[in-house]
Amino acid sequence: MDAKTFSSKNGMPDASVKYRPYPQIDISDRTWPSKTITEAPIWCSVDLRDGNQSLVNPMGHDRKARMFQLLLDMGFKEIEIGFPSASQTDFDFARWCVEEGRVPADVSLQVLVQCRPELITRTFKALEGAHRPIIHFYNSTSELQRRVVFGKDVHGIKQIAVDAAKMITDMAAKAGGGYRFEYSPESFTGTELEVALEICNAIIAEVKPTADNKLVLNLPSTVEMSTPNIYADQIEWMCRNIDNRENVIISLHPHNDRGTGIAATELGLMAGADRVEGTLFGNGERTGNVDIVTLALNMYTQGVDPKLDCTNIERIKAVYEYSNEMLIPERHPYVGELVYTAFSGSHQDAINKGMKAIRQANSPVWEVPYLPIDPQDVGRTYEAIIRINSQSGKGGIAYILQADYGINLPRNLQVEFREDIQRITDEEGVELPSKRIYQRFMERYVEQPGARLKFVDHHTYPAGTEHKGVRVVAAEITDRGETRRIEGKGTGPIDGFVNALSSYLEIEISVADYSEHSLQHGSNAAAIAYVEMEHPGGKLFGAGVNTNIVTASLEAIVSAANRVLDEKKA
Amino acid sequence: MDAKTFSSKNGMPDASVKYRPYPQIDISDRTWPSKTITEAPIWCSVDLRDGNQSLVNPMGHDRKARMFQLLLDMGFKEIEIGFPSASQTDFDFARWCVEEGRVPADVSLQVLVQCRPELITRTFKALEGAHRPIIHFYNSTSELQRRVVFGKDVHGIKQIAVDAAKMITDMAAKAGGGYRFEYSPESFTGTELEVALEICNAIIAEVKPTADNKLVLNLPSTVEMSTPNIYADQIEWMCRNIDNRENVIISLHPHNDRGTGIAATELGLMAGADRVEGTLFGNGERTGNVDIVTLALNMYTQGVDPKLDCTNIERIKAVYEYSNEMLIPERHPYVGELVYTAFSGSHQDAINKGMKAIRQANSPVWEVPYLPIDPQDVGRTYEAIIRINSQSGKGGIAYILQADYGINLPRNLQVEFREDIQRITDEEGVELPSKRIYQRFMERYVEQPGARLKFVDHHTYPAGTEHKGVRVVAAEITDRGETRRIEGKGTGPIDGFVNALSSYLEIEISVADYSEHSLQHGSNAAAIAYVEMEHPGGKLFGAGVNTNIVTASLEAIVSAANRVLDEKKA
Repeated sequence: MDAKTFSSKNGMPDASVKYRPYPQIDISDRTWPSKTITEAPIWCSVDLRDGNQSLVNPMGHDRKARMFQLLLDMGFKEIEIGFPSASQTDFDFARWCVEEGRVPADVSLQVLVQCRPELITRTFKALEGAHRPIIHFYNSTSELQRRVVFGKDVHGIKQIAVDAAKMITDMAAKAGGGYRFEYSPESFTGTELEVALEICNAIIAEVKPTADNKLVLNLPSTVEMSTPNIYADQIEWMCRNIDNRENVIISLHPHNDRGTGIAATELGLMAGADRVEGTLFGNGERTGNVDIVTLALNMYTQGVDPKLDCTNIERIKAVYEYSNEMLIPERHPYVGELVYTAFSGSHQDAINKGMKAIRQANSPVWEVPYLPIDPQDVGRTYEAIIRINSQSGKGGIAYILQADYGINLPRNLQVEFREDIQRITDEEGVELPSKRIYQRFMERYVEQPGARLKFVDHHTYPAGTEHKGVRVVAAEITDRGETRRIEGKGTGPIDGFVNALSSYLEIEISVADYSEHSLQHGSNAAAIAYVEMEHPGGKLFGAGVNTNIVTASLEAIVSAANRVLDEKKA
Repeated sequence: MDAKTFSSKNGMPDASVKYRPYPQIDISDRTWPSKTITEAPIWCSVDLRDGNQSLVNPMGHDRKARMFQLLLDMGFKEIEIGFPSASQTDFDFARWCVEEGRVPADVSLQVLVQCRPELITRTFKALEGAHRPIIHFYNSTSELQRRVVFGKDVHGIKQIAVDAAKMITDMAAKAGGGYRFEYSPESFTGTELEVALEICNAIIAEVKPTADNKLVLNLPSTVEMSTPNIYADQIEWMCRNIDNRENVIISLHPHNDRGTGIAATELGLMAGADRVEGTLFGNGERTGNVDIVTLALNMYTQGVDPKLDCTNIERIKAVYEYSNEMLIPERHPYVGELVYTAFSGSHQDAINKGMKAIRQANSPVWEVPYLPIDPQDVGRTYEAIIRINSQSGKGGIAYILQADYGINLPRNLQVEFREDIQRITDEEGVELPSKRIYQRFMERYVEQPGARLKFVDHHTYPAGTEHKGVRVVAAEITDRGETRRIEGKGTGPIDGFVNALSSYLEIEISVADYSEHSLQHGSNAAAIAYVEMEHPGGKLFGAGVNTNIVTASLEAIVSAANRVLDEKKA
């Protein structure tokens, strides 16, 4: 291979000294590479626990409750709702789920707990009255953590887990049963397989799972440390060697440190696992947990029912963004803003021909070049495919105005203006250059040739000592070319001028949103003001540009008023 | 598996009717699952071609040139710089690279071209004078594209490629040699393996590669359609069956539609491939090309020299963001803002113990729980691990002020204010709640208790008919409690007031940036104004809140002026 001839300019420390390769698994008769995924695993969402604990700003009740409802609506049957013994918020949320969460009978609430008696007691309190909840207990078993974090040998680490298993099963029996159990040897992928097996078998011996109450044995890739085939080898090895396999549900819990969490999960399922813990779109510690939506849609596009409803991926995205306060990147599989977009002409041509062929053949089978899924299956549209190409995407338009002209449109104005541009590109069928988008914006919102009203000047003065803080705005406008003087009161020029204009036009208008920014640097540079105006027919924007910030904002009001008058006429 | 008992609420079309599973490869004696990656492949960056063509706003010369320099600095030896026969921008950039790009002798420029005579001729023009450039020609070979896009059989598709190979090798020979060649059967993963082999062997027979001038045979996963093990099977099968294997460089070009592009590449390398085409952080069509930085660092953390310099990942990120005009998500492996952050107390504790153990053992080997790479190796720092935990990240602070208080800090103010918060969290060592961040902001920028200057009121009037557009601002302020009247001229109240204050204080101040937005809805709601003030010692911000937009902005100026006076004193 020619790479040997490269001269390395690598300034990083010598990898061969600083890092150790991950050991191979001795399993040359592995069977997973010839397997395929033919049915959905049991899905368990950990959005409200692993996902939540990795947020800059963890969720309060409202954000949790909205996420929880989405997970139920999507069809999750197992939902890890938190770590109630470690956090009062999580405890309260567990109580809310039990008492007010309207949890269907086929859904199990799951909670995490460390192997410590006082935490276990508190955990049972959090779950009182829940229907078949899952107590998920864990301790860290890796060679590294045994050595540097706990200072214990394998026997000591195993005893921690076995003692917890005994306490938990005893408490569950005393409470009259109805509990399910999950054990995780945390940092499993850093644990020698024989050690992991010894500890897991000890837990199985203690819990004594049955066909009616299987033990979930969760084998996490807490930190992803190897190519995904090695995780699959580990899973196949554990599936072969674990005691009482038929009464154990083997669960995967992959993270994504090497960017191969999806692959590790898919290969792990081929290797025999029954269940997957992950999060929507892969939120979670560091690089995140495995992304369950992508896993489900990967199965779906291979003809397998994923048993999760992703019909409305935009809703899933919206709740994700609301509850996690994080954004989904543009290139995220199946959901990113750009993933159904073809920019290149040859791709667009092939897509159009593929769609035409399906229509002509009247075939139910989806076969379109460059589109591995029909966007409509997840609530996205075909228009999306050419939307950005014509540069009429809301994001694209906002970007161009910002990058080329320093104009930062408020979000609602982006939406409003996008519709206008969409009409033009639909009519003309060509890409609109940046300059035409700018000209259209200026014409429609700022210059308004032929508009009925124009702003001329204004003057403000205090309304008098009996009206503290109130000012009078006296303004001059033209109405169909005729000069008019109008007057109104308010706390500032915007308020007073809107009142003046409202009386003059005899239309109820008010300002729903206002913003303004300078267009270039320097204090005598022009500013652009945006006013969102509420009127009896809805809301719309006006804009104004002036070196005087007050004039810009009053011009924006006149601009909006002209557009209200136009809408009334239409 | 319990999944069978789930009742599906899935509202999507029946997957088993609409989608076909991807066919398995008949290669039960595959060897790749027992292989490991022991040396870096040949890397080829396609940022300037595949990456560029997928951008909402494709790169102009400056953005291209900056990306190109970064790729050279990182140590790429093969760089696809565009599609010069399809775009004048790309043609001009190819000429610039040849004539002014200072391309080292061990680097090959690569350009893409379709199998069409006029485009091939133009491509040779674009490369005149280049040192050992690679002519990369392609046509689409998949069953679907043959059927619905080209309406040709295998023979017809093969002939297109062979004719192009003949023309290209003839032209290269006439030009005196020095050219290298690459062929891609585009949509390879949708092509029957026997067909791909037949076409590739025909190209090999035509090009007649030698040990001195090997043919690059690029086998793209143009659209990712299967689990990554199947791509590896395809690559192993091709490596086994291709003619003249020793003189052919097998190249991978994975996309990421199923989120497994990294895994497909790693398994493909284990299957025998020699070379990888991809982009920095995975920009590219739809979900993107494979991410070369993650691939390189995955190798590095397994003890393999990646032969790419990622020492300064923040620079790579900055150029990515500048040239692509896209942002890197927070959870992107190795580079995202949150990937070296541990939020949970138990993770932080384990990390600290791991680091302490390394220091005590004075070991060169990196072994720290939850941190698969030493952040310092890529120019990130340990502080990052607790930075967000204390909520003092610039992004975190801006987010909190926005989400909880409706305050949208301008970017430069975020940077300035973050330093202030950092000082507090460093001193106190605890997490700052949202309310304290808000109070600190208000105290420092808006309320300024004990500040020397306060704004009281103002009045503006036209400067007179001889100064068209100029207004006089007459304002009342207090200076150490004493009332002062100041006056200045300008195009608007900001301009005039800054001039008045500048004369009064005898300090040269001017406005570098200004913005303002409403804090709640309604025209008599308060607005917040931000003014970035330039002064002899640098730049700093002031802010003001008032129901009157003019008052808010003049208060912001006074706020900034107070901070200038404080800095002068200090």
